[in-house]
Amino acid sequence: MSQKEVLFTIFGATGDLAKRKLYPSLFHLYKKDELHDNFAVIGTARRPWSDEYYQEVVLSSIKDIAEDEQEAKKFASHFYYQSHDVQDTDHYDALKDLGTKLKEKYQTKGNQVFYLAMAPQFFGIIAKHLKTQNILTGEGFERVIIEKPFGTSYETAKELNDSLQTVFPEEDIFRIDHYLGKEMVQNVSAVRFANQMFESLWNNRHIDNIQITFAESIGVEDRGGYYETSGALKDMVQNHILQVLSLLAMEPPAKFTEKDIRTEKIKALRSIRPYSEEEALDHFVRGQYSAGSLADKEFVSYLDEPNIAENSRTETFVAGTFLIDNFRWYGVPFYVRTGKRLTEKATRISIVFKQTKHDLFAKETTNELAANVLTIYIQPTEGFSLTLNGKQIGQGFEIEPMKLDYRHDAEVLGNSPEAYERLILDTLLGDATNFSHWEEVAASWNLIDVVRKAWDKDNSPLPTYPAASMGPDAAFELLRKTGREWIWTPDVWYRERGLL
Amino acid sequence: MSQKEVLFTIFGATGDLAKRKLYPSLFHLYKKDELHDNFAVIGTARRPWSDEYYQEVVLSSIKDIAEDEQEAKKFASHFYYQSHDVQDTDHYDALKDLGTKLKEKYQTKGNQVFYLAMAPQFFGIIAKHLKTQNILTGEGFERVIIEKPFGTSYETAKELNDSLQTVFPEEDIFRIDHYLGKEMVQNVSAVRFANQMFESLWNNRHIDNIQITFAESIGVEDRGGYYETSGALKDMVQNHILQVLSLLAMEPPAKFTEKDIRTEKIKALRSIRPYSEEEALDHFVRGQYSAGSLADKEFVSYLDEPNIAENSRTETFVAGTFLIDNFRWYGVPFYVRTGKRLTEKATRISIVFKQTKHDLFAKETTNELAANVLTIYIQPTEGFSLTLNGKQIGQGFEIEPMKLDYRHDAEVLGNSPEAYERLILDTLLGDATNFSHWEEVAASWNLIDVVRKAWDKDNSPLPTYPAASMGPDAAFELLRKTGREWIWTPDVWYRERGLL
Repeated sequence: MSQKEVLFTIFGATGDLAKRKLYPSLFHLYKKDELHDNFAVIGTARRPWSDEYYQEVVLSSIKDIAEDEQEAKKFASHFYYQSHDVQDTDHYDALKDLGTKLKEKYQTKGNQVFYLAMAPQFFGIIAKHLKTQNILTGEGFERVIIEKPFGTSYETAKELNDSLQTVFPEEDIFRIDHYLGKEMVQNVSAVRFANQMFESLWNNRHIDNIQITFAESIGVEDRGGYYETSGALKDMVQNHILQVLSLLAMEPPAKFTEKDIRTEKIKALRSIRPYSEEEALDHFVRGQYSAGSLADKEFVSYLDEPNIAENSRTETFVAGTFLIDNFRWYGVPFYVRTGKRLTEKATRISIVFKQTKHDLFAKETTNELAANVLTIYIQPTEGFSLTLNGKQIGQGFEIEPMKLDYRHDAEVLGNSPEAYERLILDTLLGDATNFSHWEEVAASWNLIDVVRKAWDKDNSPLPTYPAASMGPDAAFELLRKTGREWIWTPDVWYRERGLL
Repeated sequence: MSQKEVLFTIFGATGDLAKRKLYPSLFHLYKKDELHDNFAVIGTARRPWSDEYYQEVVLSSIKDIAEDEQEAKKFASHFYYQSHDVQDTDHYDALKDLGTKLKEKYQTKGNQVFYLAMAPQFFGIIAKHLKTQNILTGEGFERVIIEKPFGTSYETAKELNDSLQTVFPEEDIFRIDHYLGKEMVQNVSAVRFANQMFESLWNNRHIDNIQITFAESIGVEDRGGYYETSGALKDMVQNHILQVLSLLAMEPPAKFTEKDIRTEKIKALRSIRPYSEEEALDHFVRGQYSAGSLADKEFVSYLDEPNIAENSRTETFVAGTFLIDNFRWYGVPFYVRTGKRLTEKATRISIVFKQTKHDLFAKETTNELAANVLTIYIQPTEGFSLTLNGKQIGQGFEIEPMKLDYRHDAEVLGNSPEAYERLILDTLLGDATNFSHWEEVAASWNLIDVVRKAWDKDNSPLPTYPAASMGPDAAFELLRKTGREWIWTPDVWYRERGLL
């Protein structure tokens, strides 16, 4: 542990994110000696708080994790508050003065991290003022952290990005994609590159299709306001699912560094076939959950959730097919799906290998040979399974699929305080693995925009699916029409209804 | 179940094998209606038994499995005894007369099975007389079943075979190899041919080496007399291990029939590189167990077992390397080992895949990447495992081998009554899967003879290994000198001695 020297400036310091995630994360880093004497935090927002009040807020946000009161107080003493109007130039001068003072006092060597915990429309104006008012001096590292959503389309994302990039170079912009982050990179990479066996098979000669499922069992909960402006496509496919897909599809990187991996991910994303709007309608299906039940629990429909527009056409489910036009993947569909109020919470990837067309055992066995499937489990369990065909135990010669398994409970990841702790540390270290590069964001939006546009023009009734099922019929038909099926369907919902 | 019409003639009808295995097996087939009205058994041996006495012996041999006394008696009524001297022509005439009578009485349609449950030196004379005295009429099928050992060298095996083949065509000679038989054929074939994934990888581009272990934990027990004339090389390697090896190495058969599989197995055996005696000493090691202990159990040395010669140089352990000179396997060693008084009873095959020379994670992880290993478990559990490299759960990025597993307790096979029941039924059906073809026997002896000869000339002290260990040091050195190691070593013996 080497202690870091840094001055944080948190825009939106009075907000929920700051209180629930950032202050506890900083305190964890403090306790681990990653931060100790040489750091300070300027909290800034519109409200007129005093330093004392701010430090009380910080103390209260860490009260559950602070065992030693003296330590907590010492930590909080590094926090300063500056009331601030992001539009007002004078306020930046006040920030500059405070920053200069704290740099001296805490010997932060001019290193600065700006955390923009506020609405994206303010990113540009903040960045501009940081530059014009000479808060950025070039003395140490100067990095900015922003949260998703990063735009709502390629156009808005680009606008946002341009406003940041006139001030910060790309490598200093840290766009958080914390849903799975480093864990996922590492898991997928370990399977691919630590097993010669799989690296040998990782192409369209051996793989029939790849399936990515991000299933949530929860509904929209209290996020209706945000979700109505987003929907599943933007909330999950544009970022998380395409991130995972690019990890699976990329060529092996020159070295296992964040930069080399990123280069390959971007290349993979740029190789995905762009659809026309008509093709997009063919390759993507959406759905919205209606009321449903599972195991005696009743769930209301999306339309009956709080803060949802009366006739909302927001999709809570997406399934789609991506095709990659390169030598490795031509002809291998990447099926993706995600949704709220599905049967089970599960993040998993299934690599479906080509099965032999030649069944040597056709006369011996009544079963058709199943495909070999490698499944990478991400959440809630972490691990691998491989389905092989083997002989049933006992007399006769019946071939049946057998699942070789290795699974553990996954660490709780996502946007937990631990995840933020790691993200902040990564930023201090300049490690961008858990963050999205502009070119990834741009390529993703280009793919997603056409689907969104096609849907927006399509006035046919929105397909629905009962809460706690695995999505609308169309999601199953999407694979069926190519002679395939989803490898994983939880049985429980269907069994309850005698459908299985 | 279609009832079979057949007359059995059992040479050696008063012996142990007949009583313990054959009569119970025939009774099982009777109860299952495979045999019912249209079968008869002539028991023959030197002793002057009456039919009544013979039927009592048969009844007593099935008393543990017969629930219905009437049924048992009716079954036994099909048994007839003819005292017989295998050298005496007149006696064959008596057999002929009895056989003709029973053919009429039981309507067996001239089908005959001759079971030679006696020493191999009599096979030739019996076969000859069966022909000259017109017991073989060509009316129905006429098959002969013999037990191992089938010779003690290529030369003696050929002599034996010639004496049989002047009378019976090859397809009517059923040489029992019941140790694993059909189960093994099916298990290995299922893995190879029901999984495109493995069939794609089943060659020297992807496989580094293959290991076959037949480990017994028992000692020589009461079989010292036989074992002294055999040793592990002839008792296990010549037949069982080479059978398994040929199944692993063969090209895919045209169809999944016994005949097509046999053709490929023979081809594989014939592709094994023949060694000079000097090469044989390099590629094979032997050992004899000395006293040892495990978990508070003490075991005597082989030399202290009953019926063992004072200075016996009989090997109770063999390890060896076979090399196959064909396009699929050139450069891939097949390591085999078998022995008595090893740490654990286990029959297993490990396919060790080539590991990438390119370790993308060298900087991330302290472990070297392990090879992917597919293990086929035969006994005492049956199933598969595959070792993959994955990321350790949690922070950091340590790659470690993870075992994906699918295992069951194996059916008890080997020379159980059930196994004999199946073998007899196979003979009636003309299915030779569980039997060895002459060309397999010949090819195996050719490979084994040179090892035996080299050892017989070698007067250096016989290596020993402590009972309950995994064999002599030389068995480990055999792999070590090529930079490899046995995938499976039970830890328990070594741990007890603080060697691990």
